[in-house]
Amino acid sequence: MAILYNSAHLYSVNRSGLPAGAKQQCVTTSLPEGFSAYVANVGIKDDTNDFTVVFARGNPTSAGVFTQSRFAGPSVVVSRPRRDKAHAIVVVSKNANVATGSQGLSDSKEITHLVAQRLGIADDNVLIATTGVIGRALPMELIRAGIAAMDGHNTTDADNVAHGIMTTDTVPKVASASIADSAARIVGVAKGVGMIEPNMATLIAMIFTDAAIDGADLDAILRTTVDQTLNCLSIDTDTSTSDTAIILSSGIIAAVGHAAFASALHEVLISLTQQIARDGEGAEKLIEVTVDGANNVAQAKRVAKSIVNSPLVKTAVHGADPNWGRVAMAIGKCSDDTDILQENVVIRFGSQEVYPNTVTASDLEQLSNYMRGDTVRIHVSLNISDATSTVWGCDLTAGYIRINADYTT
Amino acid sequence: MAILYNSAHLYSVNRSGLPAGAKQQCVTTSLPEGFSAYVANVGIKDDTNDFTVVFARGNPTSAGVFTQSRFAGPSVVVSRPRRDKAHAIVVVSKNANVATGSQGLSDSKEITHLVAQRLGIADDNVLIATTGVIGRALPMELIRAGIAAMDGHNTTDADNVAHGIMTTDTVPKVASASIADSAARIVGVAKGVGMIEPNMATLIAMIFTDAAIDGADLDAILRTTVDQTLNCLSIDTDTSTSDTAIILSSGIIAAVGHAAFASALHEVLISLTQQIARDGEGAEKLIEVTVDGANNVAQAKRVAKSIVNSPLVKTAVHGADPNWGRVAMAIGKCSDDTDILQENVVIRFGSQEVYPNTVTASDLEQLSNYMRGDTVRIHVSLNISDATSTVWGCDLTAGYIRINADYTT
Repeated sequence: MAILYNSAHLYSVNRSGLPAGAKQQCVTTSLPEGFSAYVANVGIKDDTNDFTVVFARGNPTSAGVFTQSRFAGPSVVVSRPRRDKAHAIVVVSKNANVATGSQGLSDSKEITHLVAQRLGIADDNVLIATTGVIGRALPMELIRAGIAAMDGHNTTDADNVAHGIMTTDTVPKVASASIADSAARIVGVAKGVGMIEPNMATLIAMIFTDAAIDGADLDAILRTTVDQTLNCLSIDTDTSTSDTAIILSSGIIAAVGHAAFASALHEVLISLTQQIARDGEGAEKLIEVTVDGANNVAQAKRVAKSIVNSPLVKTAVHGADPNWGRVAMAIGKCSDDTDILQENVVIRFGSQEVYPNTVTASDLEQLSNYMRGDTVRIHVSLNISDATSTVWGCDLTAGYIRINADYTT
Repeated sequence: MAILYNSAHLYSVNRSGLPAGAKQQCVTTSLPEGFSAYVANVGIKDDTNDFTVVFARGNPTSAGVFTQSRFAGPSVVVSRPRRDKAHAIVVVSKNANVATGSQGLSDSKEITHLVAQRLGIADDNVLIATTGVIGRALPMELIRAGIAAMDGHNTTDADNVAHGIMTTDTVPKVASASIADSAARIVGVAKGVGMIEPNMATLIAMIFTDAAIDGADLDAILRTTVDQTLNCLSIDTDTSTSDTAIILSSGIIAAVGHAAFASALHEVLISLTQQIARDGEGAEKLIEVTVDGANNVAQAKRVAKSIVNSPLVKTAVHGADPNWGRVAMAIGKCSDDTDILQENVVIRFGSQEVYPNTVTASDLEQLSNYMRGDTVRIHVSLNISDATSTVWGCDLTAGYIRINADYTT
């Protein structure tokens, strides 16, 4: 069994920050009580694991959010109406089963049917997420054989699950948190490195908990939390056709406080969000943009997204260049926000103000050192009112071009 | 005097297409009747020309459109209210004079005042555009000395003007057209390679005509035409703080038909738009996206922009990969357009349908050859109604990263 990086543990050490040097750390994370998984290779593309099923004993509750894409894949179409009935989630990686027409829909349905039979549950209790190349039919014979070979669970390790759902991710993403005043835990896994700007939805993330919490509450807490975490993430402004976030509770550990649960879920999803941003295609730096003093949260998020998505800001960060003029430009292009006045705006890199106050020569050296680090924080105060938003992204590098100019059709 | 590339001439040879092999062509373009220019180096950054004044004799009329940026530069602030009074336009290149506060405003005003004195016209008759790095004060002593040295005009060559306003452009952009049933001409020059997604405005473009046409008509025709040309352009989704397009008529040649004038202006601006897209930072290919069958033009343009701005589409084009799944994704992320149904959409590269019909093996080879060309057309039919829009952009390359990760602060 692989010994893998777990950022949630590290995250709890430094709540405000990021897991510095995280890739060097080795920890494992077990799934919460009541969960088991089956992770295998069925031969979709190569010999890495590509077929994952996670299932909950007990009396599970669930909730999910999905892509709003007009080209949403058949797996999203199948899973969306079942989001409050899940006992198990199947993930097929290396093929998205998107833009595959009626055959694709029937394939996604068949997979959930076959898995439901093996687990002895109803079809409606199985959700499916598929991820990988768009526009290719699933190799159903291989998948059928793979499901026939599935014989109970073969792991309770969340790291194995995170590995099973990877496509071009370079590291698995796992995060966990314990819930205050309870023995219950929340464990989340996610995948995604490109085609990532979740919009009222998200990439593929699965969150597991043993805390007993009813479905409607789970749904409300999930939506609120995703909006402040995964929906504040952009690698490349491109929204996936397969975005899926599902939370599944085995309900084994009773009676947790909702606020404590929401807080722990927030911690898990913030960690996954930052892990995804840091592993963005070709990324070498994580960018965190906070906009405060906004008229409302929507405005703060709009301006912050404009900055984190600007290719000129992303390349400046890549070049360790404190080019605040590009941040000003990115704020400025929110041209419908006529209450933003350039004479009231303050721009900072880290804690160093760069506009309107001029940077001194000695500050500039310190600032250049800061810009060469692996995390760059940009802080903008609009000084209109008091709303705030923080978003995450990554630098734009030649690696992104290489990965995506070479990726297959 | 440099002998320079003029695409307008070539464009008129092949109206539907682009100036193939344009960089090899050598033609010169004179300014229209009644125009002269002064182009010089005043030492803003290096020894290339950085100070340009174009002025019209006769009884000029003018119109202009400007950036909507909330960080609009002082030169935009000075020029906007004078847009219908211009006799002359000053362009300072290599320094944008943006985010420079009250000093920047007073500098832009002083430059127009000094130039107005030299030309013997009112301050209000002089417009100014500045372009280059953001956040640095203009070197006013050098500029004052440069204006003092200005002694009448030194060129009537539009290519010299186009050269004078360049920053990191690799080729000057000039286009000209004659007006049907008239001796009058329209000549346009433009600059811009990055920070380009004009929004209700544009980058720096100057259009000169000797056709007599009153200011209100000029304004209406300019706005309509810019909306179909320069506003359909995106290099990198970033909107400049300095976007300025000005049209100036010397009125020497009387009585042109408005339709003929609008048609010639459209021809000039389409050519400049395509020249700018092709010279986008690091660009190796021009991408033209046409969306038809839309419910309205705004929807067609929104979907087309989503495609031409997608970094995954741009990198696929760079890699000559007919990865239509990414085009489907980019259409899909227009999630508010709920009348877009994936089962009704048709996607083509060039004339080759790739979705929903599958590409045969022999078609695929032809398609790969097409994708390796220097112009890639993507054609999407939404099959909702009959509105159409065409937009232009370029591929995303390691050159873009190199240029922008190295650019100065």
